[in-house]
Amino acid sequence: MANPLAIQRPTLLLDRSRALANIERMARKAARSRVRFRPHFKTHQSAAVGEWFRQGGVEAITVSSVEMARYFAQHGWQDITIAFPANILEIEAINHLARQVELGLLVESAETANFLAQHLSSRVNIWLKIDTGYGRTGLAWSDLNAILRLAEQIEAAPHLSLRGLLTHSGHTYGARSKAEVEAIYRDSLAKLVTGQERLATAGFSRIELSIGDTPSCSLVDDLSGVDEIRPGNFLFYDLMQLQIGACREAEIAVALACPVVAKHPTQNKLVIYGGAVHLSKEAIRSADGRPLYGYVAELGAEGWGPRLERACVSGLSQEHGLIEADDETVARFNVGDLVTILPVHSCLTVNLMGQYRTLDGETLLCMERS
Amino acid sequence: MANPLAIQRPTLLLDRSRALANIERMARKAARSRVRFRPHFKTHQSAAVGEWFRQGGVEAITVSSVEMARYFAQHGWQDITIAFPANILEIEAINHLARQVELGLLVESAETANFLAQHLSSRVNIWLKIDTGYGRTGLAWSDLNAILRLAEQIEAAPHLSLRGLLTHSGHTYGARSKAEVEAIYRDSLAKLVTGQERLATAGFSRIELSIGDTPSCSLVDDLSGVDEIRPGNFLFYDLMQLQIGACREAEIAVALACPVVAKHPTQNKLVIYGGAVHLSKEAIRSADGRPLYGYVAELGAEGWGPRLERACVSGLSQEHGLIEADDETVARFNVGDLVTILPVHSCLTVNLMGQYRTLDGETLLCMERS
Repeated sequence: MANPLAIQRPTLLLDRSRALANIERMARKAARSRVRFRPHFKTHQSAAVGEWFRQGGVEAITVSSVEMARYFAQHGWQDITIAFPANILEIEAINHLARQVELGLLVESAETANFLAQHLSSRVNIWLKIDTGYGRTGLAWSDLNAILRLAEQIEAAPHLSLRGLLTHSGHTYGARSKAEVEAIYRDSLAKLVTGQERLATAGFSRIELSIGDTPSCSLVDDLSGVDEIRPGNFLFYDLMQLQIGACREAEIAVALACPVVAKHPTQNKLVIYGGAVHLSKEAIRSADGRPLYGYVAELGAEGWGPRLERACVSGLSQEHGLIEADDETVARFNVGDLVTILPVHSCLTVNLMGQYRTLDGETLLCMERS
Repeated sequence: MANPLAIQRPTLLLDRSRALANIERMARKAARSRVRFRPHFKTHQSAAVGEWFRQGGVEAITVSSVEMARYFAQHGWQDITIAFPANILEIEAINHLARQVELGLLVESAETANFLAQHLSSRVNIWLKIDTGYGRTGLAWSDLNAILRLAEQIEAAPHLSLRGLLTHSGHTYGARSKAEVEAIYRDSLAKLVTGQERLATAGFSRIELSIGDTPSCSLVDDLSGVDEIRPGNFLFYDLMQLQIGACREAEIAVALACPVVAKHPTQNKLVIYGGAVHLSKEAIRSADGRPLYGYVAELGAEGWGPRLERACVSGLSQEHGLIEADDETVARFNVGDLVTILPVHSCLTVNLMGQYRTLDGETLLCMERS
C-alpha cells in the first residue's frame, strides 16, 4: 500500500491543484457576474493558503472571529469582514484592528449599534445581518421598519459607516439539487432587495448586498444580483456539499490519511487511527438513515483515488474510527496501511487538524489556538 | 451580569475544587477496592492538571496517542499505557518512549504482535485488547483460542512482556441507570475472567485485568474484581455522564463561558459566540428526540450556577450557538452578557479549547497540537 509521504498518524492531505482549480472557478464566476469576491477564510485558517487567493487577485476577505481577523491582518490582509454578530466584549481588539485595516462588522441590534457608537475609536464598515429564512440569527428580512431604524441609528453614529445588507442562506444546506438551491438563492435575493429598496426610499442610496453560502455560490450561474459573495467551503468542499450537489467528488481537495490499526473481517470492519478529534463528529445520513462520518478512498502515489463504494466511516470515538466495508474491501487493507477519509465537513476537520500536508509533501500551518 | 474574569470570548472554565473532589473520590474508591488507579489523561491533556493527580498519589497513567505519551513523559510521568491499538507506523517514536518510561501498548492481532516482535528495541508491557461487548475493537472475549495463541506469540517475543487483558466497556454509555451499568460491568468482568482462566490453565499465572469506562468506575461500588481502572472523563464529567446517571450536575467541573451576541425574544432564542469549534458537535437527545448540544447556566462571582431548566443549546454552527429558552430566561440576558454552557462531552470540548481558565483566574495549558 502506498505511503509516499511517510505518514505515521492522522494527517490532513491537501490536493493543491484541486484547491487552486476551485479558487479559479469561483474567481472567474465572480468576475463574470461582476461581484466582489470576498472569500471566507475560516475554511482554511492558513496564511499560506491565503496567498493562493492573493495570487488569484483577491484583496478582500471574510473571517469568523476577531482573533482570525488579527491573524490575517498580521499576514498583510487589509480589507476584512468579520462575518459574525459583533461581539462587544472584544471592543478593545476591534478598535485595534480598525486602526490597521478596512474592517467590516455585522450588526443586528440597536444595543450593539449603540455600544459601538459609544466605544469605537476608528471608522468601521457596518453590514446589517439579515435573516432571509435560515433562522439562525439576523434581523427578520420582513421587518423593514426595524431595518430602517437600525440603518438610521448607524448612519447617525460617528465611526459607523453603513455598507450594506448581508445574509447567510444556510438553509441551502438542506437542499438536494441545483434547482432547490437556485430557488433559495432567488428567494433570499428578493428579500434582500426588498430591504435595499426600503432603505433607498429613505435616502440610503448605495446599500450593497452580500451573500455567502457555498451551495448558492457554486450552483447559481449568474450572481450579478448581489454586490459581494463570501463563500468559504468551496475551497475544499466535502461530503455535505457533495450530498447537496454543490460539488463533484473530484473537486474535494482535502482528505484525512489514517493508519489502519485493527481489522475484523468477520465483522466487515476496519479500525483506523482517526476519530472525533481529527474529523469532528459532524455526520451526514446514509440512505437508510444511519450517521456517516466519512467516505473511504485509497492513497496512491498521486493522491487519493475515487471513493470506495462499499465502505464508509460508520462510527467515531475520540481517536478511533470504524470503517464498515464489504469482504473485498476489508481484504484489501492490512494493519499498518493507510486509508484516506473524505470528510463530512472540511471546515471542522481543518480546525481540528491545524495543518495540512500537500501531496508533494509540504507542510502548511493554520493559525494557532490562543 | 457577572464577568469576574473579564472574559471576552469563548473560554473554558474549570472548577478546580470540583475536579479535585472528583479525583479524590475516584482515588479513594480505587484504594478501597485495592485496584491500581491509572487515570486516562486524554480528558484533560494538561501537565498542570496532571500534577493534581500526582499530588493525589497517582503514578501510572493512560493516554490515547503516542504524541500524548511523549508529552506526559516530558512532564515526568514514568508509567504510561497508550490505550489505543498499537499503531505500528509510529514504531520509531514508540521505541524512543520505551527507552524512557515503563510503556504499555495494546495488541489485538498476530500481525501487530509480529511487527512489534521484529522492531521493538526495548521492553514494553503488552495488554491484549478484549472486546467484551462494546463492538468497537479488540479480540472477541469468547475466542479463547485466539487469545491464547496471541498470548503465546507475545510471550515468545524478546521485548514483549504480557501484562494482562484490557477492555473498554463503552456500551455503558447506552445505560441509563446504576443497575444497568452494574450489569454491564459484571458481564464484562465475567468475560475477562474467562480469558484470564483460560490463560491460567496454559501456565500464564499473573495476567492482570484492566477496565476503563467512567460509568462503571463511577457507579460500581466495589471494583475489586479487576487489577486496574483507567477512567478519564470522571475528572470533569459532562451531560453524557449526567444522562447515564454516572454523576450529579454539581460534579461537572468544566463549562464554556460564552458571550451573548444576539437576542431574538419573539423566537425565544439567544445567539452566543460558542459553536462547533468550541463545544464539538457531540449531542445528546432531548426527551422529544431533538439534538441537544449543551445546558445553560448563569455565571456568578463564585462560578456557574445550576442549570437553567427552561433553556438549552439547540443548534451549533462553526462559531454560533443557538440557545432556545422561555421568555423569562431570554429576558434575563442581554447582548454582551456571558452565559455558561455545560458541555455534552467534556473530552472533545477540552481538545478543541486547548486551555482552561480556573475560577480564580489562572490559565492552564493543554499539550499543543503538532
